[in-house]
Amino acid sequence: MIRLGLVGIGKIARDQHLPAIAADKRYTLAATASRHAQLDGLPGYAEIGAMIAGDNDLDAVSICTPPVGRQVIAMAAIDAGLHVMLEKPPAATTSEITALAEHARTRGVTLFATWHSREAAGVAAARDWLCDKEIRAARIRWKEDIRRWHPGQEWILEAGGFGVFDPGINALSIMTAILPTPLLLDSATMDVPEGRSSPIAATMAMRSGEAAVDADLDFLQTGPQSWDIEVDTDAGTLRLSMGGSVLQLPGADPVTGEDSEYPHLYARFAELVATGQSDVDIRPLQLVADAFLVAERRVAAPFQF
Amino acid sequence: MIRLGLVGIGKIARDQHLPAIAADKRYTLAATASRHAQLDGLPGYAEIGAMIAGDNDLDAVSICTPPVGRQVIAMAAIDAGLHVMLEKPPAATTSEITALAEHARTRGVTLFATWHSREAAGVAAARDWLCDKEIRAARIRWKEDIRRWHPGQEWILEAGGFGVFDPGINALSIMTAILPTPLLLDSATMDVPEGRSSPIAATMAMRSGEAAVDADLDFLQTGPQSWDIEVDTDAGTLRLSMGGSVLQLPGADPVTGEDSEYPHLYARFAELVATGQSDVDIRPLQLVADAFLVAERRVAAPFQF
Repeated sequence: MIRLGLVGIGKIARDQHLPAIAADKRYTLAATASRHAQLDGLPGYAEIGAMIAGDNDLDAVSICTPPVGRQVIAMAAIDAGLHVMLEKPPAATTSEITALAEHARTRGVTLFATWHSREAAGVAAARDWLCDKEIRAARIRWKEDIRRWHPGQEWILEAGGFGVFDPGINALSIMTAILPTPLLLDSATMDVPEGRSSPIAATMAMRSGEAAVDADLDFLQTGPQSWDIEVDTDAGTLRLSMGGSVLQLPGADPVTGEDSEYPHLYARFAELVATGQSDVDIRPLQLVADAFLVAERRVAAPFQF
Repeated sequence: MIRLGLVGIGKIARDQHLPAIAADKRYTLAATASRHAQLDGLPGYAEIGAMIAGDNDLDAVSICTPPVGRQVIAMAAIDAGLHVMLEKPPAATTSEITALAEHARTRGVTLFATWHSREAAGVAAARDWLCDKEIRAARIRWKEDIRRWHPGQEWILEAGGFGVFDPGINALSIMTAILPTPLLLDSATMDVPEGRSSPIAATMAMRSGEAAVDADLDFLQTGPQSWDIEVDTDAGTLRLSMGGSVLQLPGADPVTGEDSEYPHLYARFAELVATGQSDVDIRPLQLVADAFLVAERRVAAPFQF
């Protein structure tokens, strides 16, 4: 039984983490830390330090606060000898997650940097199907309406807010998981609205082995939304749609799986804790930082929510 | 004896690599690959593929081509079972160097991502002196004249050219080496000249443990040039100047060491090859990518060389 502290009680915690924890017999939710909320019947603290100091006999924490500030919270947990699970992206910068991984290794605790989209229903089967194919080309088409999914979230277009890479990193987490060879960036473009710091649209020109991998990310998509990945191989084209939950193999009908991304993440975390392992894959965040590093920037029309 | 192939014969190869290789008895320079130059009396090839295919009995290659394209060259060398030494920065992106490190590990060859400034005369002594001090604050002041040191190098201000981080990464390579705790970035500013893609000046607000670490990078410094690092501790302020070659400890006179950065790099590479180890520290490049990821950008006056 893992006595778990939950840090951050926002929308993602209520929609995904709490139901997944409640449904998994390996966990007891023992306490929470949040500046803004508490849960009925549970010890609630404003800060993780107080939660750790409290008499809660914790084994692990799951951190779903925003990425800025998450590294300091996770360090405190690791210092206290607790196992740590992190929402995506695992930190605000690549340096932070690298430092966290090293610290967890030194202290001998489990660190799990989660990428929930990798647990989408079609992803594991896509990876298995691709592993012995010749990859010829691949495409990401990730187009959603920022006003619909992130209403009023001004921070997302501020410096460090990732802009359209906030959803786009989910596509990169899937692509790095299903392709058999490393995904590397050659060039990128970013359209940054006048007066903003982060892009509202972007393209990435990548490669994996000999295959060109292109990404088209857009935050101004009204009407039908696209969270699609296609991979052309010597055996035809594989299609993942709806964020990875629908898989279509060549010549077959699309298969829609059940959504159990967060239950899978918690099952995996329990497994990692039981076996004394960590799982920290920084590649999706590296690709985003690399895109900012090499991008051609263009000024786009001003944007208001 | 290491039979070495040199890839890229530009200014850095002629000024630094060739003299260091010639002076080290552990190396025989066996061949070169460069599109633009050859060396008298040595087999010269236009491409690394031809050099590898040639009858040169190579053990290792040293790659000092520009960072864009270096990953493909290094992959070819690793595929051929050769040990690889890389000029700084080790690749064009963090993803590329991570993929190279993994490939070298899989193939069982040595990969050495060099940071020549870490071999400056004062750096090792600075690290040793700092290791048991309480760090209270630290500063980087890296200010040079782009027209003097990079005349006509338009690419440096293009997308992927790093701008003022091309020299600034040297300061970050020293700072990450001498501080006892990880160096993490909180925020950054970048001044990008109108019509250019990379910054001509930048600031970074970082931290290491509880200490604030600030960097002030400028490419428009005329008159005296600054390549200075200061670290305030409980035992006074340590000063590294002239790019790390002059060390001043509190209460002592400045000590200027001999410049043997590249001889040290080649000595270290020979050691790594002999012991079957790799040395790939991506933290300086991560900090640069992180700075681009989170920076507030400002438009600066147009710049002409």
